[in-house]
Amino acid sequence: MFNFSPGPSMLPPAVLQTIRHELLSFRGSGLSILEMSHRSDSFSEMLEEAQADLRTLMDIPSQYLIFFMQGGATAQFSAIPMNLNPPADYIDSGLFAHLAFTEAQKYGRVVCAGSSRAARYTHIPEYTLSPDARYVHATLNNTVYGTRFSRLPETGSVPLVADLSSCILSEPFDVSRFGVIYAGAQKNAGIAGVTITIVRKDLLGHALPITPSVLDYTRLYEAGGLLHTPNCFGVYVCSLIFKWLLAQGGIPAMDALSRERSGLVYEALDDNPLFKTHADKRDRSRVNIVFTTGSPALDEQFIQEAQRRGLVGLRGHRVLGGMRASLYNAMPLDGAKALAECIRSFKGDAAIE
Amino acid sequence: MFNFSPGPSMLPPAVLQTIRHELLSFRGSGLSILEMSHRSDSFSEMLEEAQADLRTLMDIPSQYLIFFMQGGATAQFSAIPMNLNPPADYIDSGLFAHLAFTEAQKYGRVVCAGSSRAARYTHIPEYTLSPDARYVHATLNNTVYGTRFSRLPETGSVPLVADLSSCILSEPFDVSRFGVIYAGAQKNAGIAGVTITIVRKDLLGHALPITPSVLDYTRLYEAGGLLHTPNCFGVYVCSLIFKWLLAQGGIPAMDALSRERSGLVYEALDDNPLFKTHADKRDRSRVNIVFTTGSPALDEQFIQEAQRRGLVGLRGHRVLGGMRASLYNAMPLDGAKALAECIRSFKGDAAIE
Repeated sequence: MFNFSPGPSMLPPAVLQTIRHELLSFRGSGLSILEMSHRSDSFSEMLEEAQADLRTLMDIPSQYLIFFMQGGATAQFSAIPMNLNPPADYIDSGLFAHLAFTEAQKYGRVVCAGSSRAARYTHIPEYTLSPDARYVHATLNNTVYGTRFSRLPETGSVPLVADLSSCILSEPFDVSRFGVIYAGAQKNAGIAGVTITIVRKDLLGHALPITPSVLDYTRLYEAGGLLHTPNCFGVYVCSLIFKWLLAQGGIPAMDALSRERSGLVYEALDDNPLFKTHADKRDRSRVNIVFTTGSPALDEQFIQEAQRRGLVGLRGHRVLGGMRASLYNAMPLDGAKALAECIRSFKGDAAIE
Repeated sequence: MFNFSPGPSMLPPAVLQTIRHELLSFRGSGLSILEMSHRSDSFSEMLEEAQADLRTLMDIPSQYLIFFMQGGATAQFSAIPMNLNPPADYIDSGLFAHLAFTEAQKYGRVVCAGSSRAARYTHIPEYTLSPDARYVHATLNNTVYGTRFSRLPETGSVPLVADLSSCILSEPFDVSRFGVIYAGAQKNAGIAGVTITIVRKDLLGHALPITPSVLDYTRLYEAGGLLHTPNCFGVYVCSLIFKWLLAQGGIPAMDALSRERSGLVYEALDDNPLFKTHADKRDRSRVNIVFTTGSPALDEQFIQEAQRRGLVGLRGHRVLGGMRASLYNAMPLDGAKALAECIRSFKGDAAIE
């Protein structure tokens, strides 16, 4: 069975086996990771390894802090303006980009620097940055509409703040070009309930007085990253994913695999005249492929046919309908091949069409 | 081995076995609960069961909403004032009560209605409520100092808002007397990364405009409790704990066990002149027993002796030192017996003493 869910999503079978294997006794301690104090030596060691492994994987410079936070990317939609104190520019490239922009309006003057909303987000918009912005926010991959920034926004000396929820660890990013990176872990990096947040240290110290402590990067830093009990099990799953990624060859290997997987599926879609993708060709995502036949009945027929072949989680997001195939790091090439084959061979039932 | 950690803490072995058993295929679905969409039928069904089981266990009236939130009790320290809009009274009965009070000051006029801080929180303070308070906040069990409210604060028509992190599901509470109940799950109800929040519906609609969406009860309610991806695995563990509690006889059984466990340990402490408890007798907690010999060297000797007997997690909180035994729902009577026996037989090394 191949699971194309957009997140929570597939995990590498080897990681699932490790979790199962050591569930009753973490690293021979006799205690389950589920029962272990977040102040214990075993947990601290694992947390530090996770941070070090992520630093290695993404080549994160030393002036960046790594936090494992809670509340998903949605909590960061508030945390970003509360910590970085607008005015700020937001690029409106999709559903979550728009939610981030809307949420930030609670905390200061934020400007929509460019939007493709009127075009139903089929492409990454052009944008014009404000002279006084304290940061520029962008969602580098748009999970719902299946688009991606093919190059990083040029923000000059203004910090780039980016939601990498669906593309983190699946392609290389030059971390030194960012002020803050955040990503819900449940797509490429682990399970739901953990948000990886990478913050350039010189941006600390500017939080609004009304910032909840749990969302205040400065408070978190002062507390050594453990202001309160973290999602211990979620961090543990991240730590296993990071080790698995390192063993697979790290981000260069994931990047190559991501191109190959998405290439296979897009080729099949382009070759079958029944299908079209939502995204314009130049801005197509490599991790979320959003497509449709244009007919809800035919889409349903495709989803059923795929399910018969063991390809699940293909139903599109409720705002667009149709299909969405999410191809994150844990998706083997064989999954993409099976999906491509299913797309190629799909003819549709003339009666339905 | 018995784990007396204050949270994350012991889980029932039967629950750990179930997690392990169905880790690769949740309820025969072929997918792991770790990989399953929070919008899938299987997950929704499990979530609804968890809510219904908690409602049964605590006899929660229908006008109360149940949310599984993220960010621990610490996030609720901000969420409470942001949603309920001070002025408010806070009873300062311990470390977390004090943190809640301090955090609330960011969001309006909050009054310390009573405090035992000057007495190092050895007892529950007397308190005087303000005439204009919109709510009264209390921490019903104080994890660090080992005290508990032996009766609910009388707040009249003013909503009582309470942190039940360490005592939820271990004794009966009349939910109808509360406005909001919140509890980190990692003590009696599950694992870290989930906060159970129970909100009386008529309190919705008053959130401050600066409330982050993830902490806004009204937004959560409007989104059917799923405003963003929840900590799916954490909710699943709660659901298993709830079913386990129902099978054990629910809260009456847990309450009886809790009295018996704590009684055994306090008796042993009272019988051995080497030890004293931090809490005054009348306010002693049933779930966190905080004690010391008064000598750090002797305390260390006791901790080592206990460890040799397989009794772990007894080291006290860093603000008090000494020992703390946390006796949550998953602690079997045999654990309390073994600890009581260790306390009774402890003589201390004369050289150290």
